[in-house]
Amino acid sequence: MPFYSQPKALHAFDAKSEAQKIAFAPISFQAARCLLRFGILDALDQTGGASAADIHQKLQLAGEPLSLYAIGVLLDMGLSMGLLWHEKDKYQLDKTGHFLLHDGMSRTNLEFVHHICYQGMFKLEESLLSGTPAGLSQFGDWDTLYPALSSLPLAAKESWFAFDHFYSDHAFDSLLPLVLADKPAHLVDIGGNTGKWARACCSYQPNLRVTIMDLPQQLALANEACTAAGFAERIHYHPVDLLDEAPRFVKGADVYWMSQFLDCFSEAQIRAVLSHTREAMGRESRLYILETFWDKQPNETAAYCVNATSLYFTAIANGNSRMYHSSVFERLIAETGLSISWQKHNIGLGHTLLCCEIK
Amino acid sequence: MPFYSQPKALHAFDAKSEAQKIAFAPISFQAARCLLRFGILDALDQTGGASAADIHQKLQLAGEPLSLYAIGVLLDMGLSMGLLWHEKDKYQLDKTGHFLLHDGMSRTNLEFVHHICYQGMFKLEESLLSGTPAGLSQFGDWDTLYPALSSLPLAAKESWFAFDHFYSDHAFDSLLPLVLADKPAHLVDIGGNTGKWARACCSYQPNLRVTIMDLPQQLALANEACTAAGFAERIHYHPVDLLDEAPRFVKGADVYWMSQFLDCFSEAQIRAVLSHTREAMGRESRLYILETFWDKQPNETAAYCVNATSLYFTAIANGNSRMYHSSVFERLIAETGLSISWQKHNIGLGHTLLCCEIK
Repeated sequence: MPFYSQPKALHAFDAKSEAQKIAFAPISFQAARCLLRFGILDALDQTGGASAADIHQKLQLAGEPLSLYAIGVLLDMGLSMGLLWHEKDKYQLDKTGHFLLHDGMSRTNLEFVHHICYQGMFKLEESLLSGTPAGLSQFGDWDTLYPALSSLPLAAKESWFAFDHFYSDHAFDSLLPLVLADKPAHLVDIGGNTGKWARACCSYQPNLRVTIMDLPQQLALANEACTAAGFAERIHYHPVDLLDEAPRFVKGADVYWMSQFLDCFSEAQIRAVLSHTREAMGRESRLYILETFWDKQPNETAAYCVNATSLYFTAIANGNSRMYHSSVFERLIAETGLSISWQKHNIGLGHTLLCCEIK
Repeated sequence: MPFYSQPKALHAFDAKSEAQKIAFAPISFQAARCLLRFGILDALDQTGGASAADIHQKLQLAGEPLSLYAIGVLLDMGLSMGLLWHEKDKYQLDKTGHFLLHDGMSRTNLEFVHHICYQGMFKLEESLLSGTPAGLSQFGDWDTLYPALSSLPLAAKESWFAFDHFYSDHAFDSLLPLVLADKPAHLVDIGGNTGKWARACCSYQPNLRVTIMDLPQQLALANEACTAAGFAERIHYHPVDLLDEAPRFVKGADVYWMSQFLDCFSEAQIRAVLSHTREAMGRESRLYILETFWDKQPNETAAYCVNATSLYFTAIANGNSRMYHSSVFERLIAETGLSISWQKHNIGLGHTLLCCEIK
């Protein structure tokens, strides 16, 4: 990790500017969102620059009748945020505006932050003090976000799944040959969710059997999707709450698989899940763990996104989990009688794959 | 205005980073706020660097028992935001963190944004479409923020007045000799609010009479404060709603004064208020307008703060006003039969004083 280990080479004036940007950050966020939402960045991109009056006319024709006042406050904030620049009365898209408009990752993150995190993040202070996701109350009376997912407002649900899939989908192609290299007969997908990975595995390796271990209500959804995909014979379901004191486990499978799963738990919970998995494993079993460690990101910006995501876990998801530093996992794995036989970083968008076996 | 008129000299990689920072901005805002709120930045400043365990112990002794988990997610986000850097397990304050901690302006802005703007800003989209401050519903059923001010939750009220006064207080000393240069006998303070300026004027110039024009409920507060200050004889009150079709005006005063007042209105409303003032003015009357124009700010960062404040007017305060471009005021002043005899920029924290007379 070549970053964060020395002071920024920043003039005092620029540091003071950064402090002001932080102080007004929620306002700039919503301004950027509205510049996207009303198609203003898009209009500037397509026309190669336009005046406020041009945009006003264009939006009216498109059935988005924003006042000149509304367009004006957004455009001026766009200038201040470096999304735009202007030549007399003609506004132009600047580079940051270009990426906000065209980069799928920043759009996916922005929609996720607006619909899932924005309101609840107001209660970060309370969440940190209580160890519970106090911000989740925006969606009703839930202990964690997971059972609430299916009853979220549509836009919130869509943005959550888009965020979740954006990161995992980018990793599948390079993961399958790694995890299925030894042609296992039986893979157990712990926390298998909607069965997306189970289906990808069955498509990739013809004779593979998969068992998905998850909460009963998740398995119902997975069953539906996997049966529809024609894998009713090869994918099986093992209902379990892994936070039980002695969860019922599938024993002696060739491969155990946990993808973006352990980051949903506290260190103590991770230790317990790893111990139970260790007990179920045979001498030849392999445990593959796919995680996003903030210290293993390819650059500072990726680490920024990962550390910001931790606070979503704090205030919204469950109050006590996070995206971890890799050293935490190294310690927990060693403490539970497992060892890392090999690891590979920078898979997909900053994932790390750990291959573990019994010590 | 030497800024915003050319594209930023930014590499694509850095522009992409900026886009990600915008996408996660509400999360970074709350992280920064909690790092301040729990005294973590302060602890690092005082100790010259500390580990998470050191901070944990320090906060426990100070009666702020944050878990190591909570301290960990905040510190790691602090690294990602450039507030901190680290040497092994020891976290150090970086320049941006230093200014966030020690610069009164960024603290005042941050508290204002958290308590007054954060929640309501979620409805910026709705506010822009409707021309009403949709975000104000967080505080109850009000048309504008102004009548709601006295019944806001304490922290919100305090942060609003701290924000309001922070900017005006920095301007008073240099304004008094400018506005009272000709030793006027009678000054009319239009939108005089709590009478702070009226009292400052009376203290500065012994024989001056002041009349405050404002809504009746504001005048009651002003009366109390001005009487307590010993100015009962010299400060008078003229209740009026300036948005009435034909508001009752004090005629022929030497000086009419409007400080941070017209930015609370739409262009059409400003035109009407200026017209009525023009009618009340005598040939020798002067109208002084103190405003914060975003294009007259000393640098980009100051303009950023001013343009962000516009969106507070949009979503929270009244839905149709803003911090204007100076050219808008030049046009409105000319349209209402007034002319600018002189103007002075960069007063206090980026204010402009316009001296107007009848054309």
